[in-house]
Amino acid sequence: MKIDAVDFFYLSMPEITLEGDGSQDALLVRVASGGHAGWGECEASPLTSIAAAVCPRSHGACQPVLDSVLGQTLDDIADIARIAKLVGRNSLDLLQADHTWSGIEIALWDLLGKRLGEPVYKLLGYPKAFPKLPYASLLFGDTPEITLAKGRAMRARGFRAVKYGWGPFGQSTAKDDRDQLAAAREGLGPDGILLVDAGAIWLDDLEAARQRLSALDEFRAHWLEEPFVSGALDAYKALSRESRVRLAAGEGSHNTFMARHLIDHAGVGFIQIDTGRIGGIGPAKEIADYAAPRGITFVNHTFTSHLALAASVQPFAGLGRHELCEFPAEPKALAFEITSNHLMPGEGGLLRLAEEPGLGMTVDPRTIERYLVDVEIRAKGKTLYRTPHVPA
Amino acid sequence: MKIDAVDFFYLSMPEITLEGDGSQDALLVRVASGGHAGWGECEASPLTSIAAAVCPRSHGACQPVLDSVLGQTLDDIADIARIAKLVGRNSLDLLQADHTWSGIEIALWDLLGKRLGEPVYKLLGYPKAFPKLPYASLLFGDTPEITLAKGRAMRARGFRAVKYGWGPFGQSTAKDDRDQLAAAREGLGPDGILLVDAGAIWLDDLEAARQRLSALDEFRAHWLEEPFVSGALDAYKALSRESRVRLAAGEGSHNTFMARHLIDHAGVGFIQIDTGRIGGIGPAKEIADYAAPRGITFVNHTFTSHLALAASVQPFAGLGRHELCEFPAEPKALAFEITSNHLMPGEGGLLRLAEEPGLGMTVDPRTIERYLVDVEIRAKGKTLYRTPHVPA
Repeated sequence: MKIDAVDFFYLSMPEITLEGDGSQDALLVRVASGGHAGWGECEASPLTSIAAAVCPRSHGACQPVLDSVLGQTLDDIADIARIAKLVGRNSLDLLQADHTWSGIEIALWDLLGKRLGEPVYKLLGYPKAFPKLPYASLLFGDTPEITLAKGRAMRARGFRAVKYGWGPFGQSTAKDDRDQLAAAREGLGPDGILLVDAGAIWLDDLEAARQRLSALDEFRAHWLEEPFVSGALDAYKALSRESRVRLAAGEGSHNTFMARHLIDHAGVGFIQIDTGRIGGIGPAKEIADYAAPRGITFVNHTFTSHLALAASVQPFAGLGRHELCEFPAEPKALAFEITSNHLMPGEGGLLRLAEEPGLGMTVDPRTIERYLVDVEIRAKGKTLYRTPHVPA
Repeated sequence: MKIDAVDFFYLSMPEITLEGDGSQDALLVRVASGGHAGWGECEASPLTSIAAAVCPRSHGACQPVLDSVLGQTLDDIADIARIAKLVGRNSLDLLQADHTWSGIEIALWDLLGKRLGEPVYKLLGYPKAFPKLPYASLLFGDTPEITLAKGRAMRARGFRAVKYGWGPFGQSTAKDDRDQLAAAREGLGPDGILLVDAGAIWLDDLEAARQRLSALDEFRAHWLEEPFVSGALDAYKALSRESRVRLAAGEGSHNTFMARHLIDHAGVGFIQIDTGRIGGIGPAKEIADYAAPRGITFVNHTFTSHLALAASVQPFAGLGRHELCEFPAEPKALAFEITSNHLMPGEGGLLRLAEEPGLGMTVDPRTIERYLVDVEIRAKGKTLYRTPHVPA
């Protein structure tokens, strides 16, 4: 079968705040082939990712992503890897291409799963999907009091693990951060799993991170996530040698090499992969395969919809010992409503993938209609992109 | 002084071929502040880089590049680094931002140099600019005969060093590649410096690269450039241990970390930086400072205009022992005509930077007019970008 169409739907909340909340907009991708449709989601900057899909070509190694996708054969999973290689070659110099392709790749797996009647994790070779322990992923409150209240609320919702990130953390004094961590631990109770995300706030400043280590240890953080930007391997490595709390990173990886460098050279204990950035489900599975035998725990990175959540859990669904799973616990309405079904924590507080073909998620056309952004891109006398009609 | 305006001009040849020739289009950036103007150039995909400049924000760490630039104070070079940090933070999740920012950063140096009456290399702290030995950067011919003729032509133009890249090289058999290398050496004569660029054709396939090593050695290549993609550090490292010809890489670096990883973990002998990608002139200078004491030779990567050439030579202008300099020897008319003055090889076949304020290059408004692409980007009921008028 040929890939007949790739459509992008840019959704946005009416107001976009400056919070570190990535669920305020979304770029959905719908791929059509041989009477089937598959859905994926790109992370992030919808308009820029659309531009990378449709831009005029610059030269042989800087072509728009769609030129390597439309009309291609899609019969089995080897075709997805083949098209990925084409995109890699033809869009080598187009930086944003990795994010654009990620959403398309996810949609191809969804489509193929539907056509073959198999959940994606089975196409990836896993005989079964293990339940995951979802951690509620939250922003730190502006004050320790708000952070405390958030923790209690999540505990009341049954979460045994909570991650706080961004907000004021790391931007003020180490003392202020300690107060936040104390509040986080108190809200969670003594048995809760506490995860902390610094949101790359210290860039590559080892000393700034070092000042928070004792409080992270004191309040028993299970990991410290992204003290530094993705590329700061040396700073990660140095911090990992001093920290009793293990480090987590990886969401910034827009190819498998970056994730492998974190595993090989940065001393992380957890590798966090967003399928909407790294090139989709195939590359994420490659990293799961690379991490597991090296004693590194794979975790999804997901702060948006349950479509993105389903996509990001497939690559490590079959790894029973890699139990934690990021769960966007306070998404904006848009992100939650993208799918009409949801992956909610069930028995034992655990999260289970839908045992349905593809990603097992149903995109809600009413949500697309409600939040759809009207976009038009014209260049060289042609309309390169116009917001498509909402599929029935 | 405040930054008053940032304008993008997307230029394109009427036809864009699938050659690996990056001089077929260009994205010029003009920054205005306090009555002065500075010019820079982004590499690559003009439309996508414009989108990253003007897109609606997605969240606090995914803002359009211009939100961190317009209205900022620009009084001295520390301001450029400060704005760079702002962009890094506010556009952390916007992949294409690095390329967009690169052109703006270059324009800020040009503007500041003009205002202060100093060439950029002096603002970088170099007391003088050493002449460079330009190598003619060419595509391999489709046949060895064409490659031979190209080499002879460059020798007749006085070039003592020539680089061949892309084209058929690496895509056929090792025997075919040997024929190309033999022709390249013959065209260049026994004393010419022969450089070879595989254009990342083998991705991370060590064995494919290995098959070419004996011919590279036989025909005395001075370096083998980009046998692999930028992230393939392990493959680079392994090849560097086996190869008598030194490896060169780095043009894909869109931040300083990537370039440092190549220096630290890939065994390269030459680090090649494009100021239009790595974040501009400041980050490129950082890499020159990092490379030099480690015995790694810094080289510019430039395949486009003489504006880009001037920008990419500044960061290592003061390093006398880092002598080779990439020179786009067969650019498309558009790229050559972007500036009305040029950095042509002079006495002794050497290339010298203009001793003028800023980058010392004059952008030709007639060229902009001739090749300007008409673009319009609309979203959320607003026109986010429309091709601006050509400055007088």
